[in-house]
Amino acid sequence: MINVAINGYGNLGRGVHLAVEQAPDMQLVTIFSRRNPSDLGISDPTIPVLPASQMEAHTEGIDVCINCGGSATDLQEQGPSTTRLFHTVDSFDTHARIPEHFEALDQVARETGHVAVISAGWDPGLFSLLRVLGLTVLPAGSSATFWGPGVSQGHSDAIRRLEGVADARQYTQPVAETVAALQAGHAVELSTRNMHTRLCYVVMEPGTTEADQRRVEAQIKEMPSYFADYDTTVHFISAPELARDHSGLPHGGQVIHRGQTAAGVNHCLSFGLELDSNPQFTGSVLVAVARAAVRKSRRGEVGAFTMLDLSLTDLSPLTPQELRRQYL
Amino acid sequence: MINVAINGYGNLGRGVHLAVEQAPDMQLVTIFSRRNPSDLGISDPTIPVLPASQMEAHTEGIDVCINCGGSATDLQEQGPSTTRLFHTVDSFDTHARIPEHFEALDQVARETGHVAVISAGWDPGLFSLLRVLGLTVLPAGSSATFWGPGVSQGHSDAIRRLEGVADARQYTQPVAETVAALQAGHAVELSTRNMHTRLCYVVMEPGTTEADQRRVEAQIKEMPSYFADYDTTVHFISAPELARDHSGLPHGGQVIHRGQTAAGVNHCLSFGLELDSNPQFTGSVLVAVARAAVRKSRRGEVGAFTMLDLSLTDLSPLTPQELRRQYL
Repeated sequence: MINVAINGYGNLGRGVHLAVEQAPDMQLVTIFSRRNPSDLGISDPTIPVLPASQMEAHTEGIDVCINCGGSATDLQEQGPSTTRLFHTVDSFDTHARIPEHFEALDQVARETGHVAVISAGWDPGLFSLLRVLGLTVLPAGSSATFWGPGVSQGHSDAIRRLEGVADARQYTQPVAETVAALQAGHAVELSTRNMHTRLCYVVMEPGTTEADQRRVEAQIKEMPSYFADYDTTVHFISAPELARDHSGLPHGGQVIHRGQTAAGVNHCLSFGLELDSNPQFTGSVLVAVARAAVRKSRRGEVGAFTMLDLSLTDLSPLTPQELRRQYL
Repeated sequence: MINVAINGYGNLGRGVHLAVEQAPDMQLVTIFSRRNPSDLGISDPTIPVLPASQMEAHTEGIDVCINCGGSATDLQEQGPSTTRLFHTVDSFDTHARIPEHFEALDQVARETGHVAVISAGWDPGLFSLLRVLGLTVLPAGSSATFWGPGVSQGHSDAIRRLEGVADARQYTQPVAETVAALQAGHAVELSTRNMHTRLCYVVMEPGTTEADQRRVEAQIKEMPSYFADYDTTVHFISAPELARDHSGLPHGGQVIHRGQTAAGVNHCLSFGLELDSNPQFTGSVLVAVARAAVRKSRRGEVGAFTMLDLSLTDLSPLTPQELRRQYL
């Protein structure tokens, strides 16, 4: 059995917990949290919940620590300190800072003899695998990545920060015509606007007026980076409607790679995900990656890695023989 | 540079040749063939074509040998003899005999210090990766694999063997309703008949009658294993029509995996391929796998492997740093 610790018990930590319960070869042995244990809503009272500050005194019996903080601030702090103590896995997804995060964890992991797999999940993660697969098999070609339909937490938060807004949910949606045209092999010049649209549901604070709504709608549509370059639709709804219709965290997307092996001989690879719960699915990926991290370390490997460095044999709980016989 | 030899220059061998030309880090140094060099139609006269029987005397300067024979008889013979001399890659696709083929090559590879990657291509190969990925990330779920629309050489050959048939082309087609129902998350009991249909274009020999056509159509539709369990359609066409409309070898298919992470929380992964040329695409996969085989051997690994044992970092010509920066 592989003994797993979860560091951080928010949506993602809970998703990891569910996934460990489905894994035949893994068990959850510790939850580290900065919050009060009784606030975490953990159904199984036999799992010890320890303050993250006491981690150093409780390393024994833990094979791998899955860091479930956010990329904005948590993971860059948690990464080095936890990788000093454990093999670690995270879902760091700030693309521009991945090289820096990789270098930081690689150094600590090599100093302390650990394996740290960073940026696991579905994007970065599974979508990265598919982008590189497409590029590798069909180098004379190009990939496009579409996200959604799904909830973007960052964009929802950006709306919530506007004056007069009580709550909001933003859905990113791929433009179906563009996806279809690419899959059909038509030459499409891709732009921000023809790849995705943004759909916003906004709850105004009590006492706000129609004029406030018009201002908020304009502020959203003009917000640079987040909305200005997209076709954006804004709907105002009530708090009960938001709770009833928009409480899930669905997501998904697709990677499409087209390329040719000779003049006029075209091929298309496509990979799609439809996820009822982004954090639960991401948690499932992290658990498989944790297994691979432990296996790498058992072979004597050390340092930082990404999912691009892992084989399916390392990720799967089945033996290579079983995989060859049943699934090859 | 990685120096590649191609063993067998049929459709697949030509596909490998095209793919090596697209690889920035590989070059074709030798073609082994049982046929007369002038019959192979090789455009580049600088590439030496040697009789397969003289392989043992010409191992120098070859980093990896890609075996491009057929699974029916060639690969099981070629595998051990070539793996004694080189690192090798093949596309062995007789699923039931994969364990046996693996053991045979594993033994030779270990004795001689080589790496042999078997059963590479798209199925087995890329589809295997996706089946195992689905099962690993969503163990509470199930996968379905659909093939086509595409030409099945085995089924085309089975028709050609019937008396009175001059030529034939058989297309395997996925049943669109079943694919759509699975993707929509409906519970579908899968059967041979509701997954695929078979579409046959047959050219009769000169001098045959309408009665011969009726007999051939009945013989096709009743042929056990190949056609009897499928909804099969037979069209009789002329030789020029066959040459004009059915000379390509398109293929493709999809792997769909659905699973849940908690009660009522469903997720769907799907991977699809649309290939204008089955042998050219398969050749492109084999070339990437040959790169990975050489890299494995440079790390001191020996024995037989499958694509399930390879990472994208091993398959790609780019460095891990480039991959992390540009594609993660």
